[in-house]
Amino acid sequence: MPIIEMHLMQGRSVEQKRAVAEAVAEAVTRTLGVGPEQVRLLITEHSSEEFSVGGVTAGRKQELAAMQAATSAKKS
Amino acid sequence: MPIIEMHLMQGRSVEQKRAVAEAVAEAVTRTLGVGPEQVRLLITEHSSEEFSVGGVTAGRKQELAAMQAATSAKKS
Amino acid sequence: MPIIEMHLMQGRSVEQKRAVAEAVAEAVTRTLGVGPEQVRLLITEHSSEEFSVGGVTAGRKQELAAMQAATSAKKS
Amino acid sequence: MPIIEMHLMQGRSVEQKRAVAEAVAEAVTRTLGVGPEQVRLLITEHSSEEFSVGGVTAGRKQELAAMQAATSAKKS
Amino acid sequence: MPIIEMHLMQGRSVEQKRAVAEAVAEAVTRTLGVGPEQVRLLITEHSSEEFSVGGVTAGRKQELAAMQAATSAKKS
Amino acid sequence: MPIIEMHLMQGRSVEQKRAVAEAVAEAVTRTLGVGPEQVRLLITEHSSEEFSVGGVTAGRKQELAAMQAATSAKKS
Repeated sequence: MPIIEMHLMQGRSVEQKRAVAEAVAEAVTRTLGVGPEQVRLLITEHSSEEFSVGGVTAGRKQELAAMQAATSAKKS
Repeated sequence: MPIIEMHLMQGRSVEQKRAVAEAVAEAVTRTLGVGPEQVRLLITEHSSEEFSVGGVTAGRKQELAAMQAATSAKKS
Repeated sequence: MPIIEMHLMQGRSVEQKRAVAEAVAEAVTRTLGVGPEQVRLLITEHSSEEFSVGGVTAGRKQELAAMQAATSAKKS
Repeated sequence: MPIIEMHLMQGRSVEQKRAVAEAVAEAVTRTLGVGPEQVRLLITEHSSEEFSVGGVTAGRKQELAAMQAATSAKKS
Repeated sequence: MPIIEMHLMQGRSVEQKRAVAEAVAEAVTRTLGVGPEQVRLLITEHSSEEFSVGGVTAGRKQELAAMQAATSAKKS
Repeated sequence: MPIIEMHLMQGRSVEQKRAVAEAVAEAVTRTLGVGPEQVRLLITEHSSEEFSVGGVTAGRKQELAAMQAATSAKKS
């Protein structure tokens, strides 16, 4: 320990995953005083229909925003 | 919070994912008295070899059922 | 499946836990078309120092709010 | 219960997943005295950039090892 | 990896936790061909109101069973 | 998102939990380019019999180390 699970939206690059893994391990070893080899991090990616806030998936939220933008454009 | 992780078998449609996200958020806000923006839901899908009950994966269970059906058909 | 993990702040009553369990199971069976006996829900409670948004734990946020309220009261 | 989540590196065969599911269920029923139908196991697979120890992803570790091997080969 | 999370009902003894940890590690190393030091197991315990099947918590199920038993006893 | 679950051994102080929450949120916002209010962190603590490496719980490992130390002391 610590064992860390991080849930992310799909689409992060290899560079970003390596950067966040390194930065989180540094943050944890510094503040908790554990050796780096103790810090294990698992990333799970979720598609835009697999994450929701207040019952609205990220995918649906994007659709609604696009529809609203289209409606606003017509009106103006 | 609440933060909710839901594990599902692979193969749900976008419509089903949106419907379950909406219904679960409504259920949680109504019974716990939290604002909808507090409810975050993560879905993780699992293939038929990644879920098992009593040591038998869903995939193997389907195979066994198909074999049994084939044997029954031969006998009759 | 579905198997659901729900993370809550500590302090919900037995009645609330039973109500949310029932409501979530109803929401899931209705929208995904699975039998109720398939729906398993696990609740994990977290104390106010075990949940944070943007690096500020719920406990620290309450402290900051109390300090701010005290400062405002003095000024007025 | 027990409900078990197992995180694995990507690339296990169907045979391995079935074998581990069976062996873990047997281990749990034997030591905890629960019926096999109570034991549910979920497997989540992670790619080599989604697992890290001490801030170094499995993918980066492989790269570093390959670079080191190449350097050693040149020197000799 | 493998990293394993096991959810249990509260009330297991230290001996049971040690036995299941040992048995699961043996099952995983044997079937997946990994070294024992790779196998990490986390146990999370849940009270009887924090686990539910089909919307009925384990605590409520026990209550219902006790009430039914009491009613049956009166009738006979 | 990101939503992060961190598993720790029991016994961290409030100060340590606040420090790790702040440091991890900073690490994640800096490397992934998300707003701080998107970063949610959940800590779950585990007792020494609820975490094991290679089938040996942390509690049993401590016992074995104490026994070994006692034996070494006798011999010398």
